[in-house]
Amino acid sequence: MQVPTVEVAAGGSSLTLTIGGGEPAVYHAVWLRDNALEQRSGGAPAGCGQKLITLLDQPAAPRIDSAAVEAKGENEQLAVVIDGQTYRYPTSWLLSHRYSHTQQRQLSPEWLSPLIRPWLGEGLNIAALTADYQTLLSDDRCLYDWLEGFHRYGLALVAGFPTAEPDAIAQVVARFGYIRPTNYGEVFEVRSEIKPDNLANTGLGLEVHTDNPYRDPVPTIQLLACMANSAEGGDSIVVDGFAAAKAVQETDPEAFKLLSHYPVDFRYAAGDDVDLHSCKPLIELGSGGELLAVRFNNRSAAPITRVPSHQMEAFYGAMRTFAQQLNAASQQVTFKLAAGELFMVDNRRVLHGRAAVVGAGERWLRGCYADVDSLTSKLRVLRRRFGS
Amino acid sequence: MQVPTVEVAAGGSSLTLTIGGGEPAVYHAVWLRDNALEQRSGGAPAGCGQKLITLLDQPAAPRIDSAAVEAKGENEQLAVVIDGQTYRYPTSWLLSHRYSHTQQRQLSPEWLSPLIRPWLGEGLNIAALTADYQTLLSDDRCLYDWLEGFHRYGLALVAGFPTAEPDAIAQVVARFGYIRPTNYGEVFEVRSEIKPDNLANTGLGLEVHTDNPYRDPVPTIQLLACMANSAEGGDSIVVDGFAAAKAVQETDPEAFKLLSHYPVDFRYAAGDDVDLHSCKPLIELGSGGELLAVRFNNRSAAPITRVPSHQMEAFYGAMRTFAQQLNAASQQVTFKLAAGELFMVDNRRVLHGRAAVVGAGERWLRGCYADVDSLTSKLRVLRRRFGS
Repeated sequence: MQVPTVEVAAGGSSLTLTIGGGEPAVYHAVWLRDNALEQRSGGAPAGCGQKLITLLDQPAAPRIDSAAVEAKGENEQLAVVIDGQTYRYPTSWLLSHRYSHTQQRQLSPEWLSPLIRPWLGEGLNIAALTADYQTLLSDDRCLYDWLEGFHRYGLALVAGFPTAEPDAIAQVVARFGYIRPTNYGEVFEVRSEIKPDNLANTGLGLEVHTDNPYRDPVPTIQLLACMANSAEGGDSIVVDGFAAAKAVQETDPEAFKLLSHYPVDFRYAAGDDVDLHSCKPLIELGSGGELLAVRFNNRSAAPITRVPSHQMEAFYGAMRTFAQQLNAASQQVTFKLAAGELFMVDNRRVLHGRAAVVGAGERWLRGCYADVDSLTSKLRVLRRRFGS
Repeated sequence: MQVPTVEVAAGGSSLTLTIGGGEPAVYHAVWLRDNALEQRSGGAPAGCGQKLITLLDQPAAPRIDSAAVEAKGENEQLAVVIDGQTYRYPTSWLLSHRYSHTQQRQLSPEWLSPLIRPWLGEGLNIAALTADYQTLLSDDRCLYDWLEGFHRYGLALVAGFPTAEPDAIAQVVARFGYIRPTNYGEVFEVRSEIKPDNLANTGLGLEVHTDNPYRDPVPTIQLLACMANSAEGGDSIVVDGFAAAKAVQETDPEAFKLLSHYPVDFRYAAGDDVDLHSCKPLIELGSGGELLAVRFNNRSAAPITRVPSHQMEAFYGAMRTFAQQLNAASQQVTFKLAAGELFMVDNRRVLHGRAAVVGAGERWLRGCYADVDSLTSKLRVLRRRFGS
């Protein structure tokens, strides 16, 4: 085992740490001072890991006086004297937080999570994403696998939930997070109605869509639980909007540019109480070009007025290209829910729809919204226990 | 009153409508076909205004055969024959949805709402943003004024709420929306504790910050209600993060560019249950450069590793510039909450903090989160009744 070497740059603005035969890693004085572990674990209340000091408490231009490697093995640490005071960092911590190889490419579409992989219809294994209700509620390992699948594919299913228990869907959500209440209630029913106030409550087919694009923040998770499905038709359809967006990017970069640049307005107005409105691009990118969310819901689209006239026809062409990708049978997965089965989508990514309901019979889904931050929190906690 | 004139372009891909002495407005065939009002108000369930047809139901390149102005006055409409079928549009509707003057400049920071105006400390009239609890709950006009103020300034206050009623804060939220439950509960208590799990529950001063940047979606609204405040100090501080971001943009464009380009990681881990993590820029811009949100919370910032090494020191300098703007006394507003008073911030925009609590006495706030989409929905509904 080679002893690490450390070299302080002239002027003390940074140091370079080289461990074994690895590539040298640079750390700046201002970064080391801000990340002094004593400020978190020492001064902060036990366990909470929050920083006690603010940025303005720190010097604008700290200088490294000297640095030396101390101890060995697991306790190996780097002692750094900054402006006369000594701070210590485990070398393993420094290595796992190195940034000297950070490149622009790390802001590619996938950087948020390398686990997220686009899928096409036939590539998706529905059975592997399905958990049994009772097991899901009682077994953390089952929950872990289920959440890991959801994180990767934006879709998860549950079989065997008790339709007679009114809070079965809430029990599922309680395993990872919290229901997001809306004007539709904590949970809402989707069924054929005589005088529907929403197209969802008809027997019509529904093109694949993301839900509630007229909300901002948009609900990031949607659950739909099947209470009854004796009608013919009404098959559920899901499609990976990230895969479709990437396909547009590859086959028609100009269309991708238009869809990710110009925002469109979505609106849902009902009666005298509700007038929801948002304004977002159909393909929402982060500052590094990473894919954050897709929105697609022609039903709730308001007239497009934020696209300049000379690009309006090209913008419609781009929307059509995106719609064709989303509606391509090869991209979609279709399955028929039975009573006691539910599915859950990442509503920023996976679109859902249904084939038309035909004949007599009953089709009744129960739905709710939730948010993904608590889900990934739970996944991260479980990954420590079960992750390989 | 001049009669409108309409001219169909050669090939029928668009028409130009000129009303009175106004500037000609261009509408494309593809846009008119997609916005045919019959598809909404006629075919869709009464009142819901959703479109029945999808984009792929429509021809890719519809052509206008002819167009003519019909009727007069309030009933004036444009009859357009597209691919042999006639669609009618009120000319007033067409004018209010014109897009031929849409320019890139409409994607400026302010386009989301021209009402949103940055404020500095002394420019803010706290009293004008404060509503009486009972009046707020019973009087829609009071609610309207209060919401309009919040929409413009990102801050609203309530006086005279009954601290003995456990759901008083929920009653306030119920006037415009829904509580967002989190791992802190539906409501949470902020008070001095012997063994705090969060810095908020100490007597320490807290630098101005946005709450929960480690959530994605971040809570867009936060309420803090004062249950008791007999301690000395503990004054509340608020500052407009949009004003501070604009100040950075004007005085140091390079810093603004760095802060809006590189994402940082925020994290909050507590015990074995919670490990929240997000990755977003401190200044989040939309695709057109419009200001969507600021995040600033040094306590919850994880080590910065997504900034390339050669820009790390400049990035720290940019954060410092932003921090200085946010902490400048001239930007901040300070007030001391009494029991029965609460304030509510747009957590994407307005930062809050507190001076240190000193001496004995008790300081106890009750807080909750909510979201802004239902608030602006309510505001839009009330604006129809009370707006000038």
